[in-house]
Amino acid sequence: MEGKEEDVRLGANKYSERQPIGTAAQGTDDKDYKEPPPAPLFEPGELKSWSFYRAGIAEFMATFLFLYISILTVMGYSKSQSKCSTVGIQGIAWSFGGMIFVLVYCTAGISGGHINPAVTLGLFLARKLSLTRAVFYIVMQCLGAICGAGVVKGFQQALYMGNGGGANTVASGYTKGSGLGAEIIGTFVLVYTVFSATDAKRNARDSHVPIRGFDMGSLLDELQILAPLPIGFAVFLVHLATIPITGTGINPARSLGAAIIFNRKDAWSDHWIFWVGPFIGALLAAIYHQVVIRAIPFKNRS
Amino acid sequence: MEGKEEDVRLGANKYSERQPIGTAAQGTDDKDYKEPPPAPLFEPGELKSWSFYRAGIAEFMATFLFLYISILTVMGYSKSQSKCSTVGIQGIAWSFGGMIFVLVYCTAGISGGHINPAVTLGLFLARKLSLTRAVFYIVMQCLGAICGAGVVKGFQQALYMGNGGGANTVASGYTKGSGLGAEIIGTFVLVYTVFSATDAKRNARDSHVPIRGFDMGSLLDELQILAPLPIGFAVFLVHLATIPITGTGINPARSLGAAIIFNRKDAWSDHWIFWVGPFIGALLAAIYHQVVIRAIPFKNRS
Amino acid sequence: MEGKEEDVRLGANKYSERQPIGTAAQGTDDKDYKEPPPAPLFEPGELKSWSFYRAGIAEFMATFLFLYISILTVMGYSKSQSKCSTVGIQGIAWSFGGMIFVLVYCTAGISGGHINPAVTLGLFLARKLSLTRAVFYIVMQCLGAICGAGVVKGFQQALYMGNGGGANTVASGYTKGSGLGAEIIGTFVLVYTVFSATDAKRNARDSHVPIRGFDMGSLLDELQILAPLPIGFAVFLVHLATIPITGTGINPARSLGAAIIFNRKDAWSDHWIFWVGPFIGALLAAIYHQVVIRAIPFKNRS
Amino acid sequence: MEGKEEDVRLGANKYSERQPIGTAAQGTDDKDYKEPPPAPLFEPGELKSWSFYRAGIAEFMATFLFLYISILTVMGYSKSQSKCSTVGIQGIAWSFGGMIFVLVYCTAGISGGHINPAVTLGLFLARKLSLTRAVFYIVMQCLGAICGAGVVKGFQQALYMGNGGGANTVASGYTKGSGLGAEIIGTFVLVYTVFSATDAKRNARDSHVPIRGFDMGSLLDELQILAPLPIGFAVFLVHLATIPITGTGINPARSLGAAIIFNRKDAWSDHWIFWVGPFIGALLAAIYHQVVIRAIPFKNRS
Repeated sequence: MEGKEEDVRLGANKYSERQPIGTAAQGTDDKDYKEPPPAPLFEPGELKSWSFYRAGIAEFMATFLFLYISILTVMGYSKSQSKCSTVGIQGIAWSFGGMIFVLVYCTAGISGGHINPAVTLGLFLARKLSLTRAVFYIVMQCLGAICGAGVVKGFQQALYMGNGGGANTVASGYTKGSGLGAEIIGTFVLVYTVFSATDAKRNARDSHVPIRGFDMGSLLDELQILAPLPIGFAVFLVHLATIPITGTGINPARSLGAAIIFNRKDAWSDHWIFWVGPFIGALLAAIYHQVVIRAIPFKNRS
Repeated sequence: MEGKEEDVRLGANKYSERQPIGTAAQGTDDKDYKEPPPAPLFEPGELKSWSFYRAGIAEFMATFLFLYISILTVMGYSKSQSKCSTVGIQGIAWSFGGMIFVLVYCTAGISGGHINPAVTLGLFLARKLSLTRAVFYIVMQCLGAICGAGVVKGFQQALYMGNGGGANTVASGYTKGSGLGAEIIGTFVLVYTVFSATDAKRNARDSHVPIRGFDMGSLLDELQILAPLPIGFAVFLVHLATIPITGTGINPARSLGAAIIFNRKDAWSDHWIFWVGPFIGALLAAIYHQVVIRAIPFKNRS
Repeated sequence: MEGKEEDVRLGANKYSERQPIGTAAQGTDDKDYKEPPPAPLFEPGELKSWSFYRAGIAEFMATFLFLYISILTVMGYSKSQSKCSTVGIQGIAWSFGGMIFVLVYCTAGISGGHINPAVTLGLFLARKLSLTRAVFYIVMQCLGAICGAGVVKGFQQALYMGNGGGANTVASGYTKGSGLGAEIIGTFVLVYTVFSATDAKRNARDSHVPIRGFDMGSLLDELQILAPLPIGFAVFLVHLATIPITGTGINPARSLGAAIIFNRKDAWSDHWIFWVGPFIGALLAAIYHQVVIRAIPFKNRS
Repeated sequence: MEGKEEDVRLGANKYSERQPIGTAAQGTDDKDYKEPPPAPLFEPGELKSWSFYRAGIAEFMATFLFLYISILTVMGYSKSQSKCSTVGIQGIAWSFGGMIFVLVYCTAGISGGHINPAVTLGLFLARKLSLTRAVFYIVMQCLGAICGAGVVKGFQQALYMGNGGGANTVASGYTKGSGLGAEIIGTFVLVYTVFSATDAKRNARDSHVPIRGFDMGSLLDELQILAPLPIGFAVFLVHLATIPITGTGINPARSLGAAIIFNRKDAWSDHWIFWVGPFIGALLAAIYHQVVIRAIPFKNRS
């Protein structure tokens, strides 16, 4: 026991993230294949566990690296006169989507790999994590995003300020309504994928009874290690579609980080769209998944 | 039992999709490794199960998101004067293929993840699902496609109508015969991949006898979770090859949705090609797989 | 028994492909973890089994689809004045590499998924298949390639003949020696990946003894289902690097098919390079893997 | 025993690589789920084992192929007047990232698949391999890189020397400090991914007790076969972001190989950045992972 990973001095690690995106370790009561009980709103014990703070640090670090790589890629594209000698819009889309793939893969086992307040909200609405944890994650994500964009600005300030700083705005030719709609549906695609990909195995798992004490469910959980790939692709594809409309937010932390570091009036005037849109999209995806796909309201109480 | 996923009030879920693209859960008689019996043409009980309707909704939603993201990407490309500052034709191909990857991954466990009437037809011809279900899926796919294209038009109507609306037509310089041929072979590639990828494990599985009651087949089924990747790639690659010829249909719902929302004469004149071609391609792929690869007509009756 | 897949009327299927690229099902003697015995040069019984001919048909079909999609993509690129409105050289590289990924995934369980005479030669040199089978595969691959290129020409003959027909030649500015070197190393990368990826699990497998009769090796074989991905990527990457030099062959069937259908003098003058180069590359990769990595000549005889 | 892979005449293979990137076979004491003991600085027995030298050869070969393909791709891009008819900057990024994916996949079971002195340093700092092995790997990586760049120069000397030879320098408009920063954070992203991806399963594994003697941990190790994908993506994404700044090193062997073969003053003046940067980045990633994520300093001694 003493040699186990989590048993660190800071506190007992009983309060694990309930639905990590990539691995979905749901604890030992998994064998019963019941709907896991909803996370409590407040779980005071969490605040004493090292894994809680470690998860927050992991979210900070992931969002920091996410903004750093993606905004730097945007800057490399924006500064060039000839777009043919850049990575192109497609390269920017790969940058955002690819980083989400890598970072979800890397942090899923630590924090659940949200890296996005809209994802955190969606999972909170499905009662997969406590309110305490959700708020903590969102704060850490926003701080990470600000630092990530800040480092990009630090590399080459004139370049950063002269090329829009990677901030999200609604492109001319589109109404604010269209921009909001694009953010809502785009975030729906992402959070829909998060729910579906991390839940894909549940049906199969439900149909297996444990045989001779061998915990099959645990192995199947492991196979969800593939989930980061469709999640990253979803981000990539939404960027392909909506970069011409809003630059693609679908992640309030990403939009906030760039807006704060860029800090010009035009970056702020549309900023509400990049919070309201993603949060509505996440809400709709949570409702779709819990009500239509999982049919939770209609189930027999167990 | 009461806590189980499928046991919702609407009805007992005994009538599951027989060959989900991504997971191929074939029920508990899998241990005998027999050719599963063909699906009946009509399965009246299906119509009373919630999972039947849920599958239809999932097909609607997936086809909706598919058209929304892909047609929006096409619009972003078409409106730009300088193609170097767009995602390019390659980006469009990623959009179609990537969405199929993500959506098959997400809906395989719910509806089988067809998202395409040609795929539904191919699997129906192989008797993997009932006629009732096939017709229901195709209707839901077409409705979803219409809605998806409609939302894109709603964002920016002038842009949509001025850039062809993502509708499929045979490009000038190609005969209708070439266009039809491109659709037939393109759909063959897709449905061939669907059959092969979801069937890839069968041979291996056949060679394993269950040991000590451990249902190995079920685990192997899980590993088919990889199937959405080659399926998505097939769609991507056919688009790379045939966008210059027909814009690439290989999915009658996608072609119908764009044609109805665009609704101009030139979109309708070639429209039959995008139903006849994909259906012939799916038919050929079903014959190739069932007769050549699986050799079903030549088998000993068991 | 009678219901089993392979037990078709044409003949008993005892003579399976020894090292399928994707799945490496090595039969039931796998539990002993011995080096499998080398395939005999001639296995007369093979010629009476349906699976032997089915494998040849699968190789034909895969090479047909490979050439069709990839050469059509090359044509779409070549005919356009503005390269920015094409899929670009990168799109062509995806087309070749992506098709190999999809087709190896789809045919690995049927024929081993070679789709390339150089791969067949490499695996033959490592004694993974009989000479009979190797020759049969290479003939079927070449026929498939000719048909695939032929269909592309059939779609638009003037376009095909006016744009080089996808035939491989050494680009001006490079010596024939450089072209030959590019083909040798490029094919080495591919066949090295084929050997490594399909062998990656062997070491791990060696370290597991079967526990309580559970055949772990078989499951690990299944996990090799991932091998098509690095193999397809290897083809993609070699194309990125050497399209400017030779158009990238690394597959004699692909080069032959395009050369025969294009059939102009300049396509034939360099043609020997695209047989000699890939065959030397495959030979070197087989030597590297068998001698350096597997150390077969130095092993204790068991 | 005699038939086993590793039992070659050169010596007993007791000294395996401790943390292969892709497969993480950690030996039989894995069942106890203890932190593995740190590798000794010097392990004299290693020097008598064939697998030690084989690992070095595999690192040489992988780095050779890495430089060959990636620098050749850079040359194909650089020589072209119209960037639209090249693979583009995005294609170059795929070349570097894709090769790392393929090569880590192929060599993980042989040498651990480092292919980069910064990765070797990071894993050495985490005490995953001996100092002897680390130094040997770095020497072999540098030799492989020199040979790989040398072959590219050999193909077309004028082209190579006229286009910068793929050597890394800080682009005009950026300070040396920015270049150093870009290398530090870029390498941090890579080594962070290496640690996280190869460690992702540890948490899950910790929570499983072996049931009925079935070594689940070994199977889970196998599932880490996916780790090369996020690692390759990390390299791809860092290239997308920092090619405009430094050409992207994050691999001292790659930078050294190109610099030695190019051998012009401007390639050498910034060269220190491409050793100091990656080594600092690897150090920070090792600290982050060992201290923050694994909390090793705070653990109870077992």
